[in-house]
Amino acid sequence: MLSEFDLIKEYFQRPQHATRAALGIGDDCALIAPTPGMQTAISSDMLVEGRHFFAGEEALRLGHKALAVNLSDLAAMGARPVGFTLALALPAADRAWLQGFAQGLFALADAFNIELIGGDTTKGPLNICITVFGEVAPGRALRRSAARPGDDIWISGTLGDARLALAAYRQELTLERSALETAAVRLHMPVPRVELGVLLAEQGIAHAAIDISDGLIGDLGHILKLSQVGATLDLDALPAGDILATRDTALRRAYSAAGGDDYELCFTAPAAARAAILTAAGSVATPVTRVGSIEAQAGLRLVDAGGAALDLQLAGFDHFTS
Amino acid sequence: MLSEFDLIKEYFQRPQHATRAALGIGDDCALIAPTPGMQTAISSDMLVEGRHFFAGEEALRLGHKALAVNLSDLAAMGARPVGFTLALALPAADRAWLQGFAQGLFALADAFNIELIGGDTTKGPLNICITVFGEVAPGRALRRSAARPGDDIWISGTLGDARLALAAYRQELTLERSALETAAVRLHMPVPRVELGVLLAEQGIAHAAIDISDGLIGDLGHILKLSQVGATLDLDALPAGDILATRDTALRRAYSAAGGDDYELCFTAPAAARAAILTAAGSVATPVTRVGSIEAQAGLRLVDAGGAALDLQLAGFDHFTS
Repeated sequence: MLSEFDLIKEYFQRPQHATRAALGIGDDCALIAPTPGMQTAISSDMLVEGRHFFAGEEALRLGHKALAVNLSDLAAMGARPVGFTLALALPAADRAWLQGFAQGLFALADAFNIELIGGDTTKGPLNICITVFGEVAPGRALRRSAARPGDDIWISGTLGDARLALAAYRQELTLERSALETAAVRLHMPVPRVELGVLLAEQGIAHAAIDISDGLIGDLGHILKLSQVGATLDLDALPAGDILATRDTALRRAYSAAGGDDYELCFTAPAAARAAILTAAGSVATPVTRVGSIEAQAGLRLVDAGGAALDLQLAGFDHFTS
Repeated sequence: MLSEFDLIKEYFQRPQHATRAALGIGDDCALIAPTPGMQTAISSDMLVEGRHFFAGEEALRLGHKALAVNLSDLAAMGARPVGFTLALALPAADRAWLQGFAQGLFALADAFNIELIGGDTTKGPLNICITVFGEVAPGRALRRSAARPGDDIWISGTLGDARLALAAYRQELTLERSALETAAVRLHMPVPRVELGVLLAEQGIAHAAIDISDGLIGDLGHILKLSQVGATLDLDALPAGDILATRDTALRRAYSAAGGDDYELCFTAPAAARAAILTAAGSVATPVTRVGSIEAQAGLRLVDAGGAALDLQLAGFDHFTS
């Protein structure tokens, strides 16, 4: 059995890695030197076995996803990632698991040039808690409360394939093997839209933003509530994932509007910013799609491609009621 | 059953509370505006049921302790606390539990004028992960690697009563009810030595520091290793807790030297700083005791009050081997 300190050193300490932290792993605290004039954005997410992932999930995927969902929160704020801490409860110090987990975690960390600066390991039911830190200029953060009537509603990437994979795992429907493999990548290996979020904030071209983790309708609902506005959402304009796009209309609407685990950005921006948004998104190779409008009238109105009202019962995901 | 959002709002959101954060709970990230010129100190600790506390532990104590152990890490760095995030996995959204937990958590947070700025709640085996943020001036942090030959070794407060209470719970020994009640306060409601740590750093009068969470010998060992020095420690000079002080010499030495859960500071400082240290500690009503010396010769030498070598097998606590 590895001791706690051996474990940290062997799998999580990377002394050879060029560090942005003033002091990394190995002391009571990590130290970072904030860029003068910038605000620090902070978010914590906890992933629990059986709740956020299946028991026996591949460690590499978990390492990736645990960091990805946190980076997605920074992206939704328009903050540039700087570093993260990892607190990890493990039933046992399993070398193969740790190696895979560290591989998935650091591959994503390296892709965004951020580093693990501290954390904690303990024995216990598998639980992964990551806290990320980023930087954003004062007044530039993309806040949920900033949507205004007349804003377009935009979505990055595509929606619903993660939910489709989950449905297949749960045997709610069947997918061919190759289709499931494609959809499952969206569920297990989400790519946080960091570059897009940072550009939207830096250029000041978006108002509100949120990342879509619990389903678009539920997450957009947070923007509407905090901004004290309403919206009309064109369900047929929602960009469905490659596999979901091959399914029938009802499933496509349901899973793209309220699927969950998409980790795309939903953001609002004035119509005058359309060209700038398309240019910014293009510069970071991130597709974006206009899917509705923010309106002064409270409530969320769902419509089809022809503008006819749709009455669907679609709710976001809640960890304590579902 | 409370939904996740109701739960956060009802127990953890305090809109009436004066906020130091630029943006607190309720968005994708919290935002804090670092004090210009200061470094940010960050630490994460995860507490797991059955590992760090007994199943059925009183929620108020857990709320206190989960934050206290994190603040103790800031204290050991000499960083002034600013705020914290809380990620919480709960088997169920139990109102009485949440109320007690929030009460213990916020009482300590208010005592140090810091606030909860964000976090996460989910369903799962009870797990409490707190990440704290503090500030320290560049070059002032009390690092584990900074001990120098000739330094005194100091301890704040007293040691061993927490371990004594644990021993009584485990029926390794018996304590009278009133003695157990006194000792148990040290186990359940540790008071982080934040003011002392901040003063030591601000005044530049200490070299290295660590908080004693896994037992003095193990924790001092981290300082020795990272500072590439050795030490002599007078076990009879160790300030035993009020209840431990009434027990026999062998138990007193063992539990004060390697008990665990003390959350006192162990720090080193040059002999020239003795008067300044006593003045600083007195100004924040924190007793401090000199218990040994840092030496160039590697290794830790344990001696008794007469300076005779003691050969005790005492080890620190490790979550994966014990």
